[in-house]
Amino acid sequence: MLRFLLPVTLACSVSIAHAQQHEDSATLRKLADDVLTHSTAYANLKVLTKEIGGRLAGSPQMPKAEQWGFKALKAAGADTVYLQECMVPHWVRGDKEEVRIISKRRDFVPPLQVLALGNSIGSGPEGITAPVIEVASFADLEAKKDQVKGKIVFYNYHFNATFIKTFHAYGDAFMYRAAGASRAAKYGALAVIVRSMSHAANNFPHTGAMRYNDSFPKIPAVAIGLEDADKLSNRISDDKDMKIYFRTTCHFLSDTIGHNVIGELKGSEEPGQVITVGGHLDSWDVNEGAHDDGTGCVQSIEVLRAFKALGIRPKHTLRVVLFANEENGTRGGQKYADAAKAAGEKHIFALESDAGGFTPRGFSFTASPEQRAKVKSWAKLLLPYGLYDFDEEGGGTDVGPLNEHLGIPIGELSPDSQRYFDIHHAQSDVFEAVNKRELELGAFSMAALLYLIDEHGL
Amino acid sequence: MLRFLLPVTLACSVSIAHAQQHEDSATLRKLADDVLTHSTAYANLKVLTKEIGGRLAGSPQMPKAEQWGFKALKAAGADTVYLQECMVPHWVRGDKEEVRIISKRRDFVPPLQVLALGNSIGSGPEGITAPVIEVASFADLEAKKDQVKGKIVFYNYHFNATFIKTFHAYGDAFMYRAAGASRAAKYGALAVIVRSMSHAANNFPHTGAMRYNDSFPKIPAVAIGLEDADKLSNRISDDKDMKIYFRTTCHFLSDTIGHNVIGELKGSEEPGQVITVGGHLDSWDVNEGAHDDGTGCVQSIEVLRAFKALGIRPKHTLRVVLFANEENGTRGGQKYADAAKAAGEKHIFALESDAGGFTPRGFSFTASPEQRAKVKSWAKLLLPYGLYDFDEEGGGTDVGPLNEHLGIPIGELSPDSQRYFDIHHAQSDVFEAVNKRELELGAFSMAALLYLIDEHGL
Repeated sequence: MLRFLLPVTLACSVSIAHAQQHEDSATLRKLADDVLTHSTAYANLKVLTKEIGGRLAGSPQMPKAEQWGFKALKAAGADTVYLQECMVPHWVRGDKEEVRIISKRRDFVPPLQVLALGNSIGSGPEGITAPVIEVASFADLEAKKDQVKGKIVFYNYHFNATFIKTFHAYGDAFMYRAAGASRAAKYGALAVIVRSMSHAANNFPHTGAMRYNDSFPKIPAVAIGLEDADKLSNRISDDKDMKIYFRTTCHFLSDTIGHNVIGELKGSEEPGQVITVGGHLDSWDVNEGAHDDGTGCVQSIEVLRAFKALGIRPKHTLRVVLFANEENGTRGGQKYADAAKAAGEKHIFALESDAGGFTPRGFSFTASPEQRAKVKSWAKLLLPYGLYDFDEEGGGTDVGPLNEHLGIPIGELSPDSQRYFDIHHAQSDVFEAVNKRELELGAFSMAALLYLIDEHGL
Repeated sequence: MLRFLLPVTLACSVSIAHAQQHEDSATLRKLADDVLTHSTAYANLKVLTKEIGGRLAGSPQMPKAEQWGFKALKAAGADTVYLQECMVPHWVRGDKEEVRIISKRRDFVPPLQVLALGNSIGSGPEGITAPVIEVASFADLEAKKDQVKGKIVFYNYHFNATFIKTFHAYGDAFMYRAAGASRAAKYGALAVIVRSMSHAANNFPHTGAMRYNDSFPKIPAVAIGLEDADKLSNRISDDKDMKIYFRTTCHFLSDTIGHNVIGELKGSEEPGQVITVGGHLDSWDVNEGAHDDGTGCVQSIEVLRAFKALGIRPKHTLRVVLFANEENGTRGGQKYADAAKAAGEKHIFALESDAGGFTPRGFSFTASPEQRAKVKSWAKLLLPYGLYDFDEEGGGTDVGPLNEHLGIPIGELSPDSQRYFDIHHAQSDVFEAVNKRELELGAFSMAALLYLIDEHGL
């Protein structure tokens, strides 16, 4: 009998698969329609960016942002909303940075547009006056190491325009910001000026976190705008006697208490199993933290709102996490993973949005080949929404510890990356730089992926 | 012997195909590197938009734009550059439009933000004062046709946010702008106000061409900004006695002489066979014509510049055409196709860029299934550049006549469409709305497709 039964079983399962795919397609369409017509993401973002603004961990804006997140998650329809306490670093910028060219020439040179790098120390209240040496790369630094002592090192490494995905250019240039100070201090440098990691056709400096290597003296560090970087480079080759006056007053205060803000939709079948989606609530102090990462926060909240509004009760518990601290530490993500591990929670998947609120193109993953194959089996369902790119390695800083400590697969929304480094960590990262539909399509994409994972596992 | 020879032949052709693909891949990479580091597209666009600005056919800016195009094509390295004379319509906007609510109430209502539709007639110098009737659609107009006589019809048809590609929303709403006046005039309306075809979260009205049906009286027509459309709708339901004062002074002058601006790289093997690439030089008068269609012009010029700079001499003649008149007529494209037909020219393919200078996602085509299959055979070469969408029907207004009259396949660059209708035909379509890298990636994409078609045919 077996050989007669098999084809029937096969036909049944094909037909069930077909019906399932039809239902998935209809659910995705409903999600898209709802998000594109009823989303609160853009309005939520406006409050976060315009009424609260920049919200570095430890700043007075931090608790305001937490309260905002709490209310927004309640309003979106979360079953429960709670705060998860988390110690966060407290770095402050201090006075406006001052970096000037000192020359015997009589021409007026306006102060250079710079921003102290996050986590860097100040120069001391009197500032530093010293000659400057330009290096094109770390290799160039090594070649010139005997000329560095007592000088300010200017890293003029250019953001590489030939990478199609701009995050690859960031990956390529990032080490100059992160490690440039200590690498120069090793050879006796007094301070560093780092060319901003950006393609922007303007002069805004782009800050961002740096880290000291404890083996070498800590020296102050700033990022410089692209136009001023070019001017400085020209000046250096042209005016051999010039010096730089360099003053920053940034410093650390004691760690303080922040919170991950968490909202849940309890799972209907497996409430003990968690699917996480989130963005980070903190931002740099010099802008409104719109694309970085206000958009990730409001998109994550929007996923929950849309599920709730459409009566899509997930099988597993959907947990939205607004992480406390990503920019100058990863304390939010670390705390969340530590707590999950300590409580013996079972996690299915964690998704992050922290690459800007631009039109989505797909998702990056840190996952097994089988898990990637499963995502690709949904490609036809996702293509009508412009989602086609699932091959990138990634997953995001905040959900990273869940992968490291619990071994669970993680992913990150991959928006179009062309404009991200125009505004990243610069004063131009404001609400007006976010497009409503692009933001909403990102939120929909996240909801679609999480619906499919909740429904079919990963 | 045949059966021993066959595998060898097959192996050879596979290996040749492999080598060819490798060479194509390397050429595309060279094109991308060059365009992303040496493009003149953004600088060219700045001159066209900032120094010349809006350039409606017949305007004083039109000949300036032609001269700009001529010089830019020379500078890009064209073998020959010439002007193709073309009669163009000459419509002028006249005085600033005035559309106001007239009410017995004492509240101050600012004038409504409107723009006369292109090709519409004026209201007469005294203007029109009449009651207003709102309709949600043409079906609604038909239902209310007995109430229309002597009134101003307000088409409040909403741009549909649930289309993922915004051009589908435009296709859906377009007829209200194009045909709304005559449809309302049929029932005795005196003028029409049309809700702007846009998703923009602001109040800029979006103009665009309309056409009269000669069977009915010609009546004046304006587009209204989205915020004012909502205000007007609220007011209508709330203030039954209100009227509208409506004054426009736009009108046609006699047709005048314009030019298609054409630059060529002569083909090395088939100089008599032409591949065309272009955008339209004209724009609306109310903005800088940046995305519409300055970007298409500078991208087309960039294709030629990159080929020339890299020593890629096309087999067929590459012809860049900056079309004289698209916005309120298609005289440029018609003229070009008529002249090609009259001269008995052989054309291979024509590509247009007129959907904005945003990050490219692929191309639309009007082509045979075999030609589409050929494009798809290059999918692996194009995917690393974010190009994946080749299924859309399309081809563009300016190259359309080549398809109609000569039957040749045509295509159009498909950029990400989310932001296009924020700025389309509104005063916000300015240089600052264009991102340098997005513009350049579009230009590269056009160069890549044309290189493959030139090399392998279509």
